Order: sequence, then structure tokens, then C-alpha cells
Amino acid sequence: MVKALVIGATGYAGVELVRLLSRHRRVQLVGVTSQSHVDKPLSFVYPHLSGHVSLICKEQEMLDKISEADVVFVALPHGYSAPVVRKALDSGIKVIDLGADFRFDEADSYEEWYGEQHKEPELLAISVYGLPEVNRSKIKEAQLIANPGCYPTSTLLGLAPLVRERMVDLNSIVIDSKSGISGAGRKLTLATHFAESNENVSAYNVARHRHTPEIEQELAKLAGEKVKVTFTPHLIPMTRGILSTIYASLTEATNSDKLREIYLDYYRHEPFIRILPEEQWPHTKWVYGSNYCDLNLRVDHRTNRVIVVSAIDNLVKGAAGQAVQNMNLMFGFPETEGLEVVPVFP
Amino acid sequence: MVKALVIGATGYAGVELVRLLSRHRRVQLVGVTSQSHVDKPLSFVYPHLSGHVSLICKEQEMLDKISEADVVFVALPHGYSAPVVRKALDSGIKVIDLGADFRFDEADSYEEWYGEQHKEPELLAISVYGLPEVNRSKIKEAQLIANPGCYPTSTLLGLAPLVRERMVDLNSIVIDSKSGISGAGRKLTLATHFAESNENVSAYNVARHRHTPEIEQELAKLAGEKVKVTFTPHLIPMTRGILSTIYASLTEATNSDKLREIYLDYYRHEPFIRILPEEQWPHTKWVYGSNYCDLNLRVDHRTNRVIVVSAIDNLVKGAAGQAVQNMNLMFGFPETEGLEVVPVFP
Amino acid sequence: MVKALVIGATGYAGVELVRLLSRHRRVQLVGVTSQSHVDKPLSFVYPHLSGHVSLICKEQEMLDKISEADVVFVALPHGYSAPVVRKALDSGIKVIDLGADFRFDEADSYEEWYGEQHKEPELLAISVYGLPEVNRSKIKEAQLIANPGCYPTSTLLGLAPLVRERMVDLNSIVIDSKSGISGAGRKLTLATHFAESNENVSAYNVARHRHTPEIEQELAKLAGEKVKVTFTPHLIPMTRGILSTIYASLTEATNSDKLREIYLDYYRHEPFIRILPEEQWPHTKWVYGSNYCDLNLRVDHRTNRVIVVSAIDNLVKGAAGQAVQNMNLMFGFPETEGLEVVPVFP
Amino acid sequence: MVKALVIGATGYAGVELVRLLSRHRRVQLVGVTSQSHVDKPLSFVYPHLSGHVSLICKEQEMLDKISEADVVFVALPHGYSAPVVRKALDSGIKVIDLGADFRFDEADSYEEWYGEQHKEPELLAISVYGLPEVNRSKIKEAQLIANPGCYPTSTLLGLAPLVRERMVDLNSIVIDSKSGISGAGRKLTLATHFAESNENVSAYNVARHRHTPEIEQELAKLAGEKVKVTFTPHLIPMTRGILSTIYASLTEATNSDKLREIYLDYYRHEPFIRILPEEQWPHTKWVYGSNYCDLNLRVDHRTNRVIVVSAIDNLVKGAAGQAVQNMNLMFGFPETEGLEVVPVFP
Repeated sequence: MVKALVIGATGYAGVELVRLLSRHRRVQLVGVTSQSHVDKPLSFVYPHLSGHVSLICKEQEMLDKISEADVVFVALPHGYSAPVVRKALDSGIKVIDLGADFRFDEADSYEEWYGEQHKEPELLAISVYGLPEVNRSKIKEAQLIANPGCYPTSTLLGLAPLVRERMVDLNSIVIDSKSGISGAGRKLTLATHFAESNENVSAYNVARHRHTPEIEQELAKLAGEKVKVTFTPHLIPMTRGILSTIYASLTEATNSDKLREIYLDYYRHEPFIRILPEEQWPHTKWVYGSNYCDLNLRVDHRTNRVIVVSAIDNLVKGAAGQAVQNMNLMFGFPETEGLEVVPVFP
Repeated sequence: MVKALVIGATGYAGVELVRLLSRHRRVQLVGVTSQSHVDKPLSFVYPHLSGHVSLICKEQEMLDKISEADVVFVALPHGYSAPVVRKALDSGIKVIDLGADFRFDEADSYEEWYGEQHKEPELLAISVYGLPEVNRSKIKEAQLIANPGCYPTSTLLGLAPLVRERMVDLNSIVIDSKSGISGAGRKLTLATHFAESNENVSAYNVARHRHTPEIEQELAKLAGEKVKVTFTPHLIPMTRGILSTIYASLTEATNSDKLREIYLDYYRHEPFIRILPEEQWPHTKWVYGSNYCDLNLRVDHRTNRVIVVSAIDNLVKGAAGQAVQNMNLMFGFPETEGLEVVPVFP
Repeated sequence: MVKALVIGATGYAGVELVRLLSRHRRVQLVGVTSQSHVDKPLSFVYPHLSGHVSLICKEQEMLDKISEADVVFVALPHGYSAPVVRKALDSGIKVIDLGADFRFDEADSYEEWYGEQHKEPELLAISVYGLPEVNRSKIKEAQLIANPGCYPTSTLLGLAPLVRERMVDLNSIVIDSKSGISGAGRKLTLATHFAESNENVSAYNVARHRHTPEIEQELAKLAGEKVKVTFTPHLIPMTRGILSTIYASLTEATNSDKLREIYLDYYRHEPFIRILPEEQWPHTKWVYGSNYCDLNLRVDHRTNRVIVVSAIDNLVKGAAGQAVQNMNLMFGFPETEGLEVVPVFP
Repeated sequence: MVKALVIGATGYAGVELVRLLSRHRRVQLVGVTSQSHVDKPLSFVYPHLSGHVSLICKEQEMLDKISEADVVFVALPHGYSAPVVRKALDSGIKVIDLGADFRFDEADSYEEWYGEQHKEPELLAISVYGLPEVNRSKIKEAQLIANPGCYPTSTLLGLAPLVRERMVDLNSIVIDSKSGISGAGRKLTLATHFAESNENVSAYNVARHRHTPEIEQELAKLAGEKVKVTFTPHLIPMTRGILSTIYASLTEATNSDKLREIYLDYYRHEPFIRILPEEQWPHTKWVYGSNYCDLNLRVDHRTNRVIVVSAIDNLVKGAAGQAVQNMNLMFGFPETEGLEVVPVFP
């Protein structure tokens, strides 16, 4: 049994980790921390866990127990994970960080987009971007995983086959993402107040969202050259799910069937990627509560563009589920362990 | 491995059974039927099942395979299950019927409320009302289970301790239930059309809902005498969940703490009943996707009434999950097998 | 033109007042105040008003302008309205207070349920409870209107004919209300955070809600004797609307048709009460954005109870619309002026 | 008073017309037709209209009354309007058709995308595309208005200034639209069944939606040359509203401020276009129930693209409201008559 700690367990990504880990047959959850609910039972803060989790939320400072763990999941706002990560690594503990801090190859990108100095820039050299479908072999060897952002996950899985095969004009990529409101976290804001967000849809951070450089960095690695994308996130009135609609100009004449073959081949061994039948477009509810990424695409012959649509549960494949998948790889467990749940529909 | 058939697998209760059974370690799902989707893969009709279920929907008439099964789940509209149930029982196969046909002790009640003749009235004598928290020992011996309705489940679990202990005036019971719209099934109706039901709430079948006599029959068994209740169901704009708010006049002076003790004691060994802490009222999202029934109560001293609130997922504890729980009991499996999922929150 | 001030214009009741008053042909909105958005254009805080309202939010202290107004609407949290009300009345200005402070005949009730001392108890003697269907003649003469709470409005309109006619046992009344989440205001709370309230329903303040004594006081006046009720409010995942389902035992044998006649007669001149046809139960979306209260009822002969269902838009008939209706009466305008809008459906 | 008929009054566009026309001071609604609800009061089919509309639904065949009308609104599925339109025009009655049949300059386009022969191709020469912000002077003179589709309205208003000024590469336009589910009409389908569409988002008719050629035709007129666009509609879980996010490559270096000036200038006299302040992105709830189109934009300097976002209420500016606006122009009424409503928020 691997002993796991969850740092920041009362945010939505943290508590989803707890949900998944509590049913994982090879993991023992040995501790959870929370700054806002110290000394409360986690199942009091989140009553859905009642009967499954009896842990008490501890202060983050009580990380002395860190050396008892085999793996630490860090689910803190960006800028807060550095000391925890450092401490865990120094103790020889594997770390999976769900925040943005260790996703960048260069501290500069982080500092430009997040507006603050990186606290542990040397660790960037050893961190591995935890997208298993692209980086599986590196993940297996990693000590520090930077778990991808939710929008980048939905985008990169949608684009990887096309970009690696250089089927699309790298300057033509437009990503239009629609996210459920849990993606904004549990922090109270007017934008996530029910009466303001229900029966409503809007774009936000247009041309300025922090996931943009993360998408570009990883696409560039796939392409072997620089990529610039336009990315627009939207909030829609549902709790879970991200649907990304991705547009790109094709560099050569092709058709939907050929591209589907490329996708089917590229993802043929992937347990969590489902290429849907031709006439079925991804629906976020079809992946609800699961680690799947559903994909489909079509060539628009009139404009010579391809449209790819991807659907994930932002809290699972876009956060906690992918973190567990990464852990499975790091510890040599079956990759799907603890993640075989069937999506909840309707 | 128990071999199971699901008759009527493309309704919401049926497909939820498939979701649960596909992950059940002691069950092999050997066939699914559907009248409306014959010869289609079930995962095409319900893409969320893709990767988990490869069965093809067969015609109900193809029930010749019934003798290969150990248990048959019947999830058909009322009035349709009789021939299937008869055939299965004659072949010595255990049956769990999710419809209303075998829930009544007397064919008269069925005929009065459902407006048609009962097709197999003799089977009523052997059918067992499948509410494990009340009828566990009988369920273990049963050949034919009548799986309770969703509203009766939420009501009976809320009232059983009070009624069995005769703490309330049996003429004073009022049940006000709020149901998610999946309870109305997959059949297309104006009342379940998104634009009509979103941002909307209404009562329906006021004083005439068919679950009324089912509630009364089972309460009467608990009380040892006749009970008449007023029951009003409502549709609210969400997919899953039933919240029942139950009102009854107390027959003697008591207080919330004492009643909580009675509930805690009554349900002390129940794996799926959670009595919430004093200040936490049940929320349907806290049981989403799970087999739990969450309960809380309070005495209104000003009026000498008790208010009990219960929350279930109508498709799980209110239908498919309870059916699996009954199957576990019938086959001597651990009662929670296949049902240990953590609710999906948020 | 009547000159109106709205004190507390950036809460949901306040801004709904602005929406209605901005289209009222006999009113000129001369000022709006807000503590949290001082010196911002109201249409910046609430962009839906853009093009309709050019007023700037002023500090509440800038009430020196109060003497320029003919009527002041006060939409502040309870406990805050007293000085404004006093000042306005002293200046001979009519006041409509949307808060709870002046709804009680006795300061004791206020203090018991709201947990603080009343700041202007002498004013209770002159304040009029602003439910036009019950108190029309007093409202016409009033200087100070206590605008009813949203739940009391939906309840009192549902019960008034029965209680005045003494058709029901006054000890038997149970009120189960379902409210859209805008009723909780614009203040950020976890209960109104989208991811927590969507796909969710729960009861709150069970047996302790502050609208209980308000309901009882007004029912007592209708009945001519004391009334105690059990009242349970629920939050359901929609923005606007309250549906109240009201249960009471009948004191004599009757039937639904006879009771409908009583309601049709009682409300025959009321412009905002709609008694629906026999088989149509009120839906909150049918009154969305309007000042209507829709009603229907049925006798449950099996239990000798009547079930009455009422639907209002909590922000209109439950708050701002009723306030405008009261203003119309106070100033001798046609009662429906500014309120003739058709509900927005779907 | 202009006498108006609504043909097809029980669809969502038709009933929204009735809502608006019933409050229009210069219109008398003299008849409504419906194939599915013949001889029922419209307020029985749509109870929100109760108290406002006393008309009975008549059979479409009863169009003998057509000659009594001054204007006929046709809100029928495509392919059905031709005989009504012909008959009305022959009687010298003005017609506003909300369907697609008369939106095309060439019958070929209609036939290619709608898959059937056009029944009155000669009328295409006299029909005017009813987008007032672009075609106001022609509308004033028209006998037959083809009221624009909902997606084209949101797209064309978003792009008109840029395309007319040729600021964007006409081959680069990508339109990603998110629609509330009322856009799919009142016809029952699985895609609009609450339990399937709630907590869900999906693309549909990818690269094949019938509004594509309509958008291209009108953009071509603005640009003075052919335009091909990629257009992807999505269904999101809300009732009303369309948000379109529009991407295009800029043909020259510019910035957001300059483009905003162009928009402010282009729309400076438009009563229903609101260019939002710089940091406020359009929200569909801010236009709910109103005829507004809210716009904002930003230049993405990193990719030299402009992103324009537009929000409308699909049933108002996207259908019935725009039809009333067109009628106002045709009859010389103030353009905003009957449309001055404030959006309903929250």
C-alpha cells in the first residue's frame, strides 16, 4: 500500500482526489490538510464523504508527517506549492502537483503569465508534464509531476495527433473552450454565485488566460517548433465538464475518415481516450465523474479546416483523475487502477 | 459469478443497472433487452457506457436465453413485466422487478391505482417488497423481489423508526417530495422538455400519485394498523435526486435529540443510511450517484410536529442501486458489493 | 411624476425595483444608493440596465436628497432601515420598506425572531402590512408600508380565502416552500455558490425560519384567532420563483369545485391573482418576471385535507413588484401601472 | 392600430411574438393559428399568457381572415410558409416570415442546404433580409421580410463593422456559438429532453449547420466579395440566449481601442446594440427577455486575431423581437415601440 497525503484537500480538486483515492485498492490515504477547516473532519466539510473518509483536516504546517508518506498530492493555489514540493523531494517523497508552478520549462513563462517570481526555478528541470498519453515513459521515472491544467488537457488530447503529424498550419489554431463552473473552484465570487451564473454564458480572460502558454509549450514539443494559439475560455451553467472545440487549417487535402484513422491509431492503446463513432459528438455528461476524454472531428471541406471536439470532466481527467493516473504510472500500478468508474449518466 | 439479464436496459433505471452491474465483481451481465433499440450496441444508445459494455440490445422476445441466467432484472413500464416474471420464475430464475406490478399485497390496490387488471395476481403472494432496511430477512429467501418505488423508498426510510415506535399520529402524515427530472424516465414529454422544466418547479398528480398506496401499505405493516397519508410530488430542475420532507404530529412530548437517538439506533447497522449531524440537512447532491439515503429531523416544538428530511439518488437507492442491494442479499454476497461508490460532489 | 429614491439599489430586490420603476410612466427615479458600489454607475454594477438607467450609486449617507423625493423604497438588510425610515417620515415622505423591520405589530416578535432590539418600535403602530389583496384600503392611506416577505406572500395568498372563511383547522397548517436561489440575495455564501447549489435541493432553517411569525401574525388577523404553522423553506436550483405547497385539514366535508368557487369569488377583482384551470398546477416559470400569483388547489378526500399550491416570482410579487403595487395604491395610480408585463416563457 | 396575425403561434418563436405584440400599443392581435392545438385558448396551451391574451388557436386553413390583417407573422417550420406568404402578398398584406425560406437570394442555396425544392422562388427577388442594423432603409419599403436566423443575427451584428471596413481576412473567420435549448423549439427530441441536456454541452451539425450559407451570403454583401466561414453551434444547459465567439485574422496592425471606436461609431445610432465597457464581456443573462445585442471585442496581439463576442436572446433579437422591430420600420412606428423592456436579471 502506497501512503498518500493530500495537501489542500478542501478545494474541489483536492476533495476529488480524496474521493478517488479512498476507493483505490493500493493506496492508503494517511493525511489531508486544509487551511480553512483545520481540525474539522473532512466529512463534515464535505458530507458526501461521510462513511468513506474519517480523516481530520490538519494545518498545512503539520507537514512533519510528510516523511511518512510515499506520495504527496499538492492541490494548492499557484504560488503556494513550492515549499511543500521542496520539502517532499528532499525527503525522497514523490510529488504530484496539481497547480501551475511546475508546468513550465522556463521560469520566465511562469513569471510573465502569473505575475510573480518562481520560488523554486531549479525544480523545473526535473518536473515532468503529467499528460500520460504524451509523456508516459517520462512520468514513470519522475519524482515530480506537474499535473496539467484542465483546459490544456482537453486541448492537447484533441490536437496531439494532428500536431505531431504536422497535418495542420501551426499558426491557424483557435481553441474555444466551455467549462462547467466547478473549474473556478470553491472560492466565492460573483461570477460563480448561482443567481449570476445560472441561465448565463460568457467568455472570460479573452486572449489572456494563463493556460495559453501551457498549451503552446506542449504543442511546440509535439510539433518541434513554436506554436501560437488563440484560446478563449467560457463559463457555462453546469457544474462539471469541459468541452473544447478546436479549429485548425489543414496543410493538405484530406478527409474526416482519414483523420479519424490517424486518431484511432494514435490512441489505440489508450485506456482513457474514446474516439466516438462518426455521428456522435462528445457530450460532457457522457464522461461525468470519469477519467475519459471523448473525441471526435470533422473536416470542413468548404474552408479546409478541421474541427476537433474533446470532452472531459474537468475535476477528473482535468485534475484529480489524471493525478491518480500519473501516480499509477510512477508506482508501477495498472494505469487504470482506481479509475475504472463508469461515467454517471444521466 | 452470477449471470444477470437486464430486461428493458435502455430506460434510465435499466441503464443505471447496467452501470452498476458492469462493475460488480460477482456478476456477469449476459444480456440486455430493449424494444426501441433492437440490435444496436447498448454503448451506442448510451455512449457513456463505451469501453465498459459491449452488449447488443436484443428483442424482449429473445428471452429464450432467460434460462442461462441466474437472476433477471426487469425494468419495464408497469403492466409489461408479468410474462417475463412468470417465465423466469418457472425456470427457477430469481427475479427483481423494478416496476410497480408486484409491490402490492392485493391485486385490488394495483387495479384501483393503475387502472388495469393485474396479469399475475397469484404471484403477489410470493413477491417480497425489496426494502432491505425493513425486510432484509425475507429478501434473502425471496424468489421474486418487488423493488420499491423511488418516492416510497425516500419516505419509508424517513418514517420507519417513528412509525414502528408509534411516535406519531398515523393520521397526520404529510409527505412533500421534490424529484429530479430523470424520475420521469426517458420518454419524451412536454413536462420533461428542457425549455419547459428548466427554471421551473411544479407539483403534479396532487393527491393522486400511484406511489401513495404503496407508501400506505408499507407504513401500515410497520405500524400494525391502517395509515392514510397525503403525498405530493414535485418536479424540480435537476437530473437526479429526491428530497422528501415529511411532517407528522407527535403523540407525546419529546425533542430532536431523543428522536435522533431512535434513528441512530434503528439504523445503526445499516451501510446505506447516514444520519447527518444536527445542523446538516440532507442535500441530494451529497448522495449523487450513490446508494445512500441521508436523513435528518427536527421537532417543531411550537406545533408539536416532527419534520424528517430524506435524500436519495432516485436512480440508485430509488431504483437500480436498491435492486443490486437486493440481489446481493438474495445471493449471499456482501450487501454493499458493487455499491461502495463515493457520491460525486460537486 | 412621483419622484422615487431606492435605498439599497444593488441588492437583488433593489435592482429589481429599479428595473420596474425605470419603465413606470408616473415615476421618475431620482436617486439610488449602495454601500458597496459608491460612485459607480448602476448600469456598470448591473449591465442589464445599460441604456435604461444612467444613475450613479451614492452613499447612503447622502440621504440629504431625501426631501426631494415623494417616495422612498428601502431595500436594506433587516436592522438597517430604521434611521432612513424615520428621516423620511419626518420629512413627510412616504416609505415602502422591503425589509422585515416594520412587518410586526409587536416589537417583541421582531426581537425574538431576529435577535436584536427594534430601533423604532413606535413606528410599528403606523406601519401597514403591504399585501394589497388583503389590506388594500389601509395601504391607500398609509405613510409607511412594510412590504411582505416572499414566503409570506406566497403563503398568505394561498391561504387567505380558506382561513378567512374558517374552512380549515387552524392547527393543521403545514407550508412547504421551494425557492429559487435569488431569494438568498447577492451576498456570497457557500449555499449559493453555483457548484454547491446546482443539481441540488435541501431544506434550511427547518422550524426556525424568520418568516414563520410573519405568516402566523397575518393568518391570525384573517382568522380572528391565534394560528401556529409549520413552515419549511427549501432551496432549489433555479434563479427566480417560489412555489408553496400548503396543507391543511378541512373542518367540514367539501370538494375541490366548491373550494375553487370560493377562491374565484374571493379574488374576482384581483388583477394579479390567477386561479388556474382545474388540471393545471402552478409553475413558477409561468409567472417569471411578472407580478402574478398563480393558484390552484385540490381536496384529498382520502385524508380530508386540502392542498393549495401557489407560485410567484420571488423578486416581483415577492418583493419589488408588490412594492410598486403598494406605491400605486398609495398615490392613487392604477394598481397595475408599470406591472402589466407578460411573464417571460419559456 | 395595425391588425396582426400570427401563423404558428404555439411554437416558441410564435408565442414570443404574441408576448411582445400583446403589449404593443399600436398593434391589435386579431388571430393566432396552430396546427397542434386547434380550438384551444392560447392561454391554455401557454398559461403564462393568461390574463393577457384571450385568443383561440385556429386552424391554419382558416386563413380566410388573412385579408382582415395588415401584417402577418409566419412562424412555421421551413418549407411550410410559402402558401401563406403568397396568399398574404396577393391580398396586399405585409408579411414577416420567421423561417428560412425567404432568406436566400438564390433558390439554389436554399435547396442545397435545406434539401428540398423552393416553392415560391420568384418571391426571393422581393424579400428583404430583415436585419435592421444593416438593411434599415430596404426594410422600410418591404412587403416581405425574411427575418434572420438566430445564429446569423448574433454573428452578423458581431462582424458587420469589421467586414464592411475590410479589417479582417475574409478566409479566416471562425464562429463558435453557444445556444440555449429553446432554440431547438418545442418539438420533443432526445437532445432537448431535460435529463439528457442538463449538466451537458455538445456541438451539433458541425460544419453542416443550415445557418452557414445565410451568414456567408450576408457577409458577402457587406464585404463585396465571397466569404466562407466555419460555423459550429453548441447546445448549453440554459433556456434562452446565444453567445457567439467570433475569430478572425486582422489584415493590418491595430488594437482593441481602435476597433472599439469603429464599433462605437458604426452602431452609434442603434437603439438595440450595446458596446460594453472594456472589461465587461457579454453575458446572455444581461439581455434576457430583451431585444438587445451586447458586443465586445479584443485584439489578440500574439496571434494578430480579433475576438468578438456577441450576446442576444435567441427568442427576441434572434426571432420575435427582431420581427417586431422590422414591423415597426415597415409601418413607420418608432423602431423601439413595444421593445423597450429591460432585460430580466438575475
